[in-house]
Amino acid sequence: MNDRLQHLLNRVLPADRSMIDAAQDHLDDLTKPQGSLGRLEEIALKYVLATGKLNPVLKKMKICCFAADHGVAAEGVSAFPAEVTPQMVYNMLGGGAAINVLARHAGADLDVVDVGVNHDFPDLPGLVKRKVQPGSANMAKGPAMSEEDALKALLHGEELADAAHKAGYHLLGTGEMGIANTTPATAIYSVLLDLSVECITGRGTGIDDNRLKHKIDIINKSVGVNSSRCTTVFGTLAALGGYEIAAITGFILGAAANRTPVVVDGFISSSGAVVALRLCPAVEDYIFFSHCSSEQGHRVVMEKLGARPILDLDLRLGEGTGAALAMQVIEGSLKIFNEMSTFSEARVSEKAKDN
Amino acid sequence: MNDRLQHLLNRVLPADRSMIDAAQDHLDDLTKPQGSLGRLEEIALKYVLATGKLNPVLKKMKICCFAADHGVAAEGVSAFPAEVTPQMVYNMLGGGAAINVLARHAGADLDVVDVGVNHDFPDLPGLVKRKVQPGSANMAKGPAMSEEDALKALLHGEELADAAHKAGYHLLGTGEMGIANTTPATAIYSVLLDLSVECITGRGTGIDDNRLKHKIDIINKSVGVNSSRCTTVFGTLAALGGYEIAAITGFILGAAANRTPVVVDGFISSSGAVVALRLCPAVEDYIFFSHCSSEQGHRVVMEKLGARPILDLDLRLGEGTGAALAMQVIEGSLKIFNEMSTFSEARVSEKAKDN
Repeated sequence: MNDRLQHLLNRVLPADRSMIDAAQDHLDDLTKPQGSLGRLEEIALKYVLATGKLNPVLKKMKICCFAADHGVAAEGVSAFPAEVTPQMVYNMLGGGAAINVLARHAGADLDVVDVGVNHDFPDLPGLVKRKVQPGSANMAKGPAMSEEDALKALLHGEELADAAHKAGYHLLGTGEMGIANTTPATAIYSVLLDLSVECITGRGTGIDDNRLKHKIDIINKSVGVNSSRCTTVFGTLAALGGYEIAAITGFILGAAANRTPVVVDGFISSSGAVVALRLCPAVEDYIFFSHCSSEQGHRVVMEKLGARPILDLDLRLGEGTGAALAMQVIEGSLKIFNEMSTFSEARVSEKAKDN
Repeated sequence: MNDRLQHLLNRVLPADRSMIDAAQDHLDDLTKPQGSLGRLEEIALKYVLATGKLNPVLKKMKICCFAADHGVAAEGVSAFPAEVTPQMVYNMLGGGAAINVLARHAGADLDVVDVGVNHDFPDLPGLVKRKVQPGSANMAKGPAMSEEDALKALLHGEELADAAHKAGYHLLGTGEMGIANTTPATAIYSVLLDLSVECITGRGTGIDDNRLKHKIDIINKSVGVNSSRCTTVFGTLAALGGYEIAAITGFILGAAANRTPVVVDGFISSSGAVVALRLCPAVEDYIFFSHCSSEQGHRVVMEKLGARPILDLDLRLGEGTGAALAMQVIEGSLKIFNEMSTFSEARVSEKAKDN
């Protein structure tokens, strides 16, 4: 494995479980029946262990939305034309996309990162320029990315997570924009999680039955063409991924390396998370899966991972929209941990002993 | 039926469906694949139809947490002693309860309403004094409330919804506090939804197996003792309810009468919603069920109603905590409706026609 990648993986350490009893005792001393806030308590506990802080802080949040184009779009696997990728980047920079609305609602900052869009952007506020290539190659005919280029994108993700940590962000979120990118995400799942392509291929932005069948054929073809390159996790990412997926992988690894919890958006972002988890299982301690996408296959993927996403709102947009909504729940969990009174403070009687 | 109650029911009109096409067209013109924001779009649409406004406003939110004691607590159906009801009211007035934390997080105001607590409270900021009786009677031995008293509590709820409407609140939420109140809520469900008591009785704040069996016996006994009074919906509420449940029923009806959408909290609040729905089916157009409680039976109740709550976070605390969290999702939905750019504004290409 490449030294630079190995160095990143070595930075990720498991969460500190030594404070689990102290954190649980605090949760149980809050003025509510034990465990009655359910997943809010689980989330707060995970956050405390991830950050290693019994007085957890959650003030500054940032979502990075990684954008890239995909050579496989030429195969007609998406309902939208590839030109929509740069158009939507401009829409995000103008503040009118769904992720802008929901990031503002959550109080999270937003960076839009060009890691591989087939368009030359001028310098614009909110745009982070980290283009590796102007789009991936067509994975139905060969590797989507060279391993060298995939590593560049991954390291851009790491650097952005490091920069966010240095800038004082406490919670990060992933997002993405890239016409046709459910296709590479599905290919990655099929290989790394050993799932049948038919079972997990969905309609993306909205294709009909014929195109769905065609999309399945293209994914199967891509997996076959690249089989010799998919003998390692990183090789699979390069051959079947895309620049935004590689960057999300690095972003998640970088967040975990800094002990910064990271909220994973939907179907595409989760494929970056799966690569990160397969490269480095300790990443699990720092990940919150935000929502179960209505994109077919995401529920199967979550079950395979043993993960239970926070929300289930039939979202299938991406961009980071699910991550933004879940951030509000996570922030609420932390406020519960930090702001509720205890039984003794509030002079509330505790549970009677069962007879 | 009592004239005053009939007058309230007459005030509730079905939502205005004439603007459904205009609202859906707007949602479909926003820069995202059609329907890709799933339940956020459904929520925004319901809110638009409920309020009758194509430019929906959602700025001011309020949760009313209704508190009352229950005579049936004497039967030992709860893990906590009855004195906890007034203690928790004081905790809420002091700002340290879970609902305080999550209402602040949502940006919602909170009123704590004494409709039947067995304690004389002084005048305190945030406390609304509407006590009908200092607790209900023991429903295992007779009716929990007289129909006259139940009506008084219900009309207090209506008045508070009217007052909130006049004060400019756009979205209301229900909450409750009352030791032992899963017992009356379960009894109401069993009668009004024809569900077996065994199937829907849960552990409330945390009782063991023996007490759970005892609780089931007490609920069955209460239903039997009061069977002659449960021939009408309102008679059932009076005989098997509690003051907070009656007030929540009136609060929901009052909200619907003013076309103010109302977010229903968990297991107890939903029993007030079931009474309101059975008294007046048009109420459905104004209700958002906030979350599926982990209190056994709530999922069964939601399925029986054909309702799909917004969140599923294993909460079983009540107070309005689930309503507060769901309010943030509803507010996000409205911001999507109001703030996203359209395809033409953003110069984004629309979906290609399927071939």
